[in-house]
Formats: sequence, structure tokens, C-alpha cells
Amino acid sequence: MRIPYDEMKRELARVLKKHGIEAGRAERSAALFADASRDGIYSHGLNRFPVFVRAIAAGDVNVHAEASFEETIGVMERWNGNRGIGNLNACAAMERAVALAKEHGIGVVGLKNNNHWMRPGNYGLMAAEAGCIGILWTNTLPLMPPWGGRDARLGNNPIVFAVPNGDEPVLLDIAMSMFAYGKLETYARQGKELPLDGGYDSKQNLTRDASQILHTKQALPMGYWKGSGLALMLDLVAAAVSGGHTTREVGEYPRETAVSQVFIAIDVEGLPNREAYLEQVKATLADLQTSTPREAGKPPTYPGQHMMAVRRENMANGIPVEESIWNKIKAM
Amino acid sequence: MRIPYDEMKRELARVLKKHGIEAGRAERSAALFADASRDGIYSHGLNRFPVFVRAIAAGDVNVHAEASFEETIGVMERWNGNRGIGNLNACAAMERAVALAKEHGIGVVGLKNNNHWMRPGNYGLMAAEAGCIGILWTNTLPLMPPWGGRDARLGNNPIVFAVPNGDEPVLLDIAMSMFAYGKLETYARQGKELPLDGGYDSKQNLTRDASQILHTKQALPMGYWKGSGLALMLDLVAAAVSGGHTTREVGEYPRETAVSQVFIAIDVEGLPNREAYLEQVKATLADLQTSTPREAGKPPTYPGQHMMAVRRENMANGIPVEESIWNKIKAM
Repeated sequence: MRIPYDEMKRELARVLKKHGIEAGRAERSAALFADASRDGIYSHGLNRFPVFVRAIAAGDVNVHAEASFEETIGVMERWNGNRGIGNLNACAAMERAVALAKEHGIGVVGLKNNNHWMRPGNYGLMAAEAGCIGILWTNTLPLMPPWGGRDARLGNNPIVFAVPNGDEPVLLDIAMSMFAYGKLETYARQGKELPLDGGYDSKQNLTRDASQILHTKQALPMGYWKGSGLALMLDLVAAAVSGGHTTREVGEYPRETAVSQVFIAIDVEGLPNREAYLEQVKATLADLQTSTPREAGKPPTYPGQHMMAVRRENMANGIPVEESIWNKIKAM
Repeated sequence: MRIPYDEMKRELARVLKKHGIEAGRAERSAALFADASRDGIYSHGLNRFPVFVRAIAAGDVNVHAEASFEETIGVMERWNGNRGIGNLNACAAMERAVALAKEHGIGVVGLKNNNHWMRPGNYGLMAAEAGCIGILWTNTLPLMPPWGGRDARLGNNPIVFAVPNGDEPVLLDIAMSMFAYGKLETYARQGKELPLDGGYDSKQNLTRDASQILHTKQALPMGYWKGSGLALMLDLVAAAVSGGHTTREVGEYPRETAVSQVFIAIDVEGLPNREAYLEQVKATLADLQTSTPREAGKPPTYPGQHMMAVRRENMANGIPVEESIWNKIKAM
């Protein structure tokens, strides 16, 4: 089943307005959900929407709160998400980081007390569209054991890097667990096996069964000790820049809320060697694709390359949706 | 065989002075090599020293060149390493990033045209000792295939995160390949098997045999597509900030030189909530160690925790050296 982008956006905005969100903000937030699905990130687009609506109903998201300025530390700024709508707050923070980058070459914004920002790649793309490199990450509740341990003590702390490249931006959007929880849920729902070990089963063996990992809550960090270490460092830096909670502190709430996020923009348009740099990017991306493919006919791709093909397909033919989820939303 | 720290430093400085490096700079550079071995990073300390001396002899390192200021882009600075001594240039850049952080909250320095900076953790520790978070990375020559390819197109682009924590700084120092080349060489020399697959053998099968990987030059990115993507992004950001070469361009030289590096410092001492933040760090590190160990009696550790134990041991009893390498250096 495929739904046109505009219809999806309208439908999601309708539900948000019904939950008391004013029209302009509801449409903006709905567009960010639809953008994720449009780009093939279904797990953090439409499929996540019912979870978000439940969080509103549970009172975890204050739909009327907006991000507010807290303080300046040199050229860095700290903002407070006031436990409002995660994707709107993240947009505001990225916009501010871009504005600071246009002024100072680089912009750094810490955002505390935010709710789940849904698909982080959206904010990387905002930076790239503004001619900036975007680097952003969040902490989460503890949901990943550190390397060598069984009990969750780390967030899987997704990080995004975006580099402008005309209509084909480079976009890396990865969690520090080998598989993001949204992805594990998709595999589990579809009964498909993970392509690689993703965590431990209840007998403490490595497994490709996503439902087992969702049960044990023992996701494997990407790169073993490396992803475990990176998750820790991203958490500590996010708390420093934002002045907000660490993952450990987020874990003291009954459900995930009040997370800490960092938004960095570097203004490529303002570089004295702007044109030469954009040529360097193009040359690197072309060069990467000349590496002999491991699988015949499948040359390596750069992060974001596949996404733009999916986006074109989904804009032309509608966005694929799981019918049960779509019907659920229609009934909301 | 164990050599006292001071003796190691003296001996290395002697060799560097013999190669025309003036006394003060020779001692500083020698100390950075000895510091790496002192902290247990033998592959990038003493064991790397003969490679460095060969690079001087081959004319790849201009021993008289010093890092020079190039330009300011907003609050960022670009410096030129002038293909001088890698570890001294990196020190200068990190010192500058720390000075900028003390002024602006955050300091960002790009360094182009540098030579191999040896152990990157040294510069992270410099930041932490100055009360700053340090984040730094380098590109390298192409030495890692992108995910899905066979031919090297990416650097393994090590990255460091350091967070101040009294006498027990948190220090993550990782390459984007599952195993750094220095580590592969150590395993190969000692004929030991890697603990995990580290790359491909000549039949294109995954292998734990380090010598095979050194032969095929097909190291596996950490976290598969994730490390591959991160290596690309770190390269593109390093070129943007420094105005220097991408990995692809570094590969056009006969041997690795003229790499691009980024040094970021965030001044923790200047945070309005400095004390509370340092308590958050301590609480997180303590909490991490309470995760039930996978192996009885071996609780998870945080990055850098083991290092400080090794340092104490090596300062008390001398630094372990491979006798053949030590004798080679004595004869230089």
C-alpha cells in the first residue's frame, strides 16, 4: 500500500491538531514525520507516529511548550526544550546552530530537556540545505549494555553527519547500537532475521533474532568496545554542552524524556575555498564508488546516496506503508 | 625487558638530535613517543619510532618546519603543518584549540599538511589536563575499503574523545577500522590471532589473521557500514575545517604525508555548572561499572580506565619493550 506524501502529511497533522497542537506547529511536526517515511526511514516516520501520540496522551510531551534560550557560553548557546515536541525543538536548535555558523563560521547549540527527536537525519539535511555541514547527536535512556556488561547503562545515542553536495547531500545517520531499536522492531514485526548479530538472547548467546534482543534489552554496540566507548563519550559531551541530563539521569524517569542533544553547523558557504571544497567532496564520492564491488554489480555507495533514490521513488509513486499502521492512524 | 621512562625519553631524544632536530623540540617529540609507551600504546610509541626515523631519512618529514597560522574563519582557525614533525604540530594545534576554548567556550583548529601525529590520545590528554573536553581526528592515506568494496578508498581516520575527570581522565582513542594498522602489525609480529575478524584474506574470506590483512590491505571497518560511513564523514569534515587534503588526495603522494586534522576543545572549567557536571561524569562512570559482568569478576570499564593502571605499573617498574626494537634504536 502506498500513500502520497501530501496525504500522509495532512493525515498526521489532523491527528496532531486533534491533540491540541496549533495548526502551524502541527503541520511542521507532521511534515517531519512524513519526510522520514518519504526518505525510507519508516521506523522513525509513520511507524513511530502512534508511539508519539501515546506519549502525548500519557502527558510525557507538553504540546504547548517551545524551546527557550537559556544562556551563552562564549560562542556556544544552551537551549531548553521544556519537554515539548521533540522534532520541533530539534528544528529550532538546528536553525539556531545554522544562524550561529553564518555569523561565526561554526555554530554550537546544546538542547536539554527535549523529547525524542524522531528521525535525526532531518536536521542534518536542514544544515546541508543551508550550505552547512551538520553534526548532531542525542543521548537516550539507558538501553544498551556497555561492552563487557549485561545490564543497560548506555544510550544508543544516534549521531548524524551531513555534508552539502548540491541535490545529493551526504547523510550519515547511525545509532551506536549495531541496530537501532526502531529497526529491531521492524525486523521483529516482519519476522525477518537480522543480517548480522545484533545482541544477546536470553541464554546470553549472540543472536540475529530481533525479538530476542527486544526482550533481553541487550543490543550489541556497533564495533563492540568502540561503539560502547563512543556512546559514553557522546553522552558526556551532550551533557556538558547542553547543561542537561546524562543517560543515567534520563533513566530515572519512568519513560524516556528530558534528553540532551548537541547541534553543530559549519558554514561551508562561508569557507574561503568553498568551490574547491565542494569539488573535493564530489571527487571523493566518485572515487569511493570505483572500489571493486564485493558483490558483482553492486558498487559501494556513500551514505545518503540510496536515500535520494528512495525519495524520488516515493514522491513519484507514494510512500509504502504497513496497512495496519496506516489504518490505526486513520482511526485516531 | 623493561626500560625506565626517563631512559626511553633520553634515548629517543638522542636519536632525534642526531637527525638535526634542535634540542628542545627533540625532547618534546621524544617525550610524546615515550608517553604513548608509558600508557601502554606501544604500537604508536617506541614501536613506531623506527618508522618515524625512516620517514625523516626519506625526506618525508621536514624536521625544521613548524606549524604556522593560515587564517581565521569566524572563531575557527586554520593552521599549516608545513609537513613538519607530526606530533609537535599536533601539540601546537591542540594548545591553540585549548586557548581558543578558554576565550570562546569552544576552540576549533584545522591543521593541514601535517605528518602522522603518532598516538592521538596524547592530545586528548592535553585537553583534559587543561580542564577541557578534547575531540580530535585525522585523515590518513586510503588504507581501508569502503563497505561493499575491495579496494582501499577510505582512511581509517582515528578519532579521540577526552573528558576531564581529575587524575582519571576518560579517554577514547579509536580507529575507524576494527583494528588499527599498528595493532595488526603487533599481532602479526607476535603471530597471535585477532580476537575478532579484522578484514579479508586473499580468498576474500573474513579472517582473524593479521598478516593476511596487512597483505590484502582489506581491513574491516568497525561496525561494517557504520565505520565506513564515519570514516568518510571525518575525512570530509577534516578537509573542510583545515582547508587541506582529503584522503583521496593524500593517496596521490608516494607515501602518507600532508594529512588533514581537526582539534576541538570545550572548556569544562568555564561552564557555569562546572562542579555539577564533573559530578555527572563521576556518577556515569561509576554506574557503568555496576552492569553485571559478562565474564565473572571482570566488570565493564570506561575508556582510559585500564590505561591509568598501565601507566602506574610502567612508571613504577619500567616500560615493557620488545628487545629487538630497543636494540635497533640504541644502535641508531
